[in-house]
Amino acid sequence: MFVILVYDVEEKRVAKVLKKCREYLTWVQNSVFEGDITEANLKKLQMELNRIIKKEADSVIIYKFNSLKYSSREVMGLDKNPQNSII
Amino acid sequence: MFVILVYDVEEKRVAKVLKKCREYLTWVQNSVFEGDITEANLKKLQMELNRIIKKEADSVIIYKFNSLKYSSREVMGLDKNPQNSII
Repeated sequence: MFVILVYDVEEKRVAKVLKKCREYLTWVQNSVFEGDITEANLKKLQMELNRIIKKEADSVIIYKFNSLKYSSREVMGLDKNPQNSII
Repeated sequence: MFVILVYDVEEKRVAKVLKKCREYLTWVQNSVFEGDITEANLKKLQMELNRIIKKEADSVIIYKFNSLKYSSREVMGLDKNPQNSII
């Protein structure tokens, strides 16, 4: 499955969230990751993120797509990680 | 069509980009917008953003999805804009 993960967490937890997401997904920009991931690995990632974030202050949104058949991705300006574009 | 727009722009241009995106899409979190938008309005938004951003420093990524049939959206922690969830 393809996911886009965006996070908005307090500064002191950014490094940990970033490191954890990098283990499973591809960094795209600022606080955005994307990538192909199995259901099992996504559950693992979510469990691990749950241990890092403070639910009353932080936010992580995961968009899941089973099919990318009709999707596209457009970059305006800098592509901060051109090597790793998946779509 | 449904889009997810994420931006990473220099601080002095954040307010302008934010304001412009708000005219067309729904603010989700930090530097993330989502929403249903027509092809024509998306083109308009992109033209207007092109006038605001500096291509050598800023980045805007637009994920476009024609179908949301197999998608879902999961929020961990705070839903910073729970009223306006579209998926």
